[in-house]
Amino acid sequence: MAIETALTRRLGLSVPVILAPMALVSGGALAAAVSRGGGLGLIGGGYAEGDWLSEQIAHAGNAEIGIGFITWALARNPDLLAVALDRRPRAIFLSFGDLRPFAPAIARAGIPLICQVQTLHDAEIALGEGASVLVAQGTEAGGHGGGRSTMALVPEIADMAGDVPVAAAGGIVDGRGLAASLMLGAGGAVCGTAFFASRESLSHAKAKERAVAASGDETVRDALFDLVRGRDWPTRWTNRTLRNDYHRGWSTRLHTLREQMTEQRPRYFAAQEAGDMDVAATIVGEGVGLVRDIEPAGTILDRMVAEAEARLRNGGGDFIGNG
Amino acid sequence: MAIETALTRRLGLSVPVILAPMALVSGGALAAAVSRGGGLGLIGGGYAEGDWLSEQIAHAGNAEIGIGFITWALARNPDLLAVALDRRPRAIFLSFGDLRPFAPAIARAGIPLICQVQTLHDAEIALGEGASVLVAQGTEAGGHGGGRSTMALVPEIADMAGDVPVAAAGGIVDGRGLAASLMLGAGGAVCGTAFFASRESLSHAKAKERAVAASGDETVRDALFDLVRGRDWPTRWTNRTLRNDYHRGWSTRLHTLREQMTEQRPRYFAAQEAGDMDVAATIVGEGVGLVRDIEPAGTILDRMVAEAEARLRNGGGDFIGNG
Repeated sequence: MAIETALTRRLGLSVPVILAPMALVSGGALAAAVSRGGGLGLIGGGYAEGDWLSEQIAHAGNAEIGIGFITWALARNPDLLAVALDRRPRAIFLSFGDLRPFAPAIARAGIPLICQVQTLHDAEIALGEGASVLVAQGTEAGGHGGGRSTMALVPEIADMAGDVPVAAAGGIVDGRGLAASLMLGAGGAVCGTAFFASRESLSHAKAKERAVAASGDETVRDALFDLVRGRDWPTRWTNRTLRNDYHRGWSTRLHTLREQMTEQRPRYFAAQEAGDMDVAATIVGEGVGLVRDIEPAGTILDRMVAEAEARLRNGGGDFIGNG
Repeated sequence: MAIETALTRRLGLSVPVILAPMALVSGGALAAAVSRGGGLGLIGGGYAEGDWLSEQIAHAGNAEIGIGFITWALARNPDLLAVALDRRPRAIFLSFGDLRPFAPAIARAGIPLICQVQTLHDAEIALGEGASVLVAQGTEAGGHGGGRSTMALVPEIADMAGDVPVAAAGGIVDGRGLAASLMLGAGGAVCGTAFFASRESLSHAKAKERAVAASGDETVRDALFDLVRGRDWPTRWTNRTLRNDYHRGWSTRLHTLREQMTEQRPRYFAAQEAGDMDVAATIVGEGVGLVRDIEPAGTILDRMVAEAEARLRNGGGDFIGNG
């Protein structure tokens, strides 16, 4: 059994699921587990720190993984692209910034380029740069993203993408979301939150506990934790996290927070290290309400695909009356 | 051919589509057209102005329509519920406010109560009040709404709703969105933007033109036009509209706008009357990018359902490999 789409054919996958390259969360072990399950596991190259990336590439062993970058951060350390390409990744995934300086080298290396976009305008640029796959990312996604939501963004981008396969991102956690993505015109889904609390995820054990306990009503999208962490994000992309005590305490007093940064920043990083999730951010999307256990990534992936297959197979039987 | 779900069975429909009761847009003719097409047409009782409602009920003729209200506005003119119930509507649709004062009278009349919710907490209350149907409304919806997005909200609410059918709202404009809604666990969809530019819609001809021309990237959700119109909305619900010149000019100067309201409000209403959509709001959701023509509502509905049926029927064939 397999779900075959334009996306799986383009990337040579046996299931239409791509692991979101969550910075410092999607490490080599998680990426390898998703790839071994038939999807595309991506290491989250994130803020482009070379040592971490090399280490995680080593952890992935011989699994056929891809590598993702925050494009504006890669622009500050562009040599890292060569490190990534040397690994012969299954794909390079770029999001959040101008991909034009990087697209040619990726094309020369013969590596598929997956471009995540948040608007139609982004999609136009990515198509112009020869993207192999477009990811239409909705605002419900965890971590950084834009303002459009998945449900209407995916079909609108699919209509302009022509033969370029589209993957849906944002709010897709189980087989229902995966099957819905295919109905919307995508060839698969990019899932982060679904794997955030997996055993192989590098998120803190306490963050995994928070994710399992939270409902989707408890997330917020803003720039507070970027400010505290000193992550210099362009303002068009904000960060979806769980609301916690720290967020509730500071979100209406950003000006004061800025003034206290010399004390607040070290306090924040210490809390993150210690797993004090009343202070540190749990970076997940609205789909967190559908995350109910800490499980191996392969188990999560298998269940998601089996559930989607069953829904797709039975769609006619469940819903269609006298044909 | 028909799509049958728990929702269509509960409401006695032949297609799983409910017209959003758009205030001053979903009049009797549009509601009648959707009901005659097999769905549930709802008149938008909106801000509970009695004369308008009676007039539109008359326009619906003998079509089996329902009636929707903005709950907090109904609370200011509660006698209007009796006017609605006297018509023996197919359903009463309540959204945005405390439904507890109204649920008992609706139950006594034996009319199904459709409750639109924006959070899990809202859903819990609606279930407690004996809602016949829950509508899980995502933030991509046009007009008023909350902060959660459709993709993850629908399955999370479906999991808590038990035997109560759920409809998805927000971003659903064509057969792709309708089929996706069913995959997410809903039994149908509530569509507003899809019908905003229909021939029967009461929106201004110039507003319909704007809707047809716009992409989904051009909407914004905030309170600016409520302020100008003097609509006293609780702050948890904001209003999604197209960005226009007026919005661009004032959105960063709300304080000044407030001070100039004696001039600005009449100016706004004059523009609305005249169809000057550089000033007046075009109240549509992100799905507006998928609205490409001014057509009869019946044509829109038929195409949506046929496309959803085809996708559901072929889901196995299109995507499933060696079974």
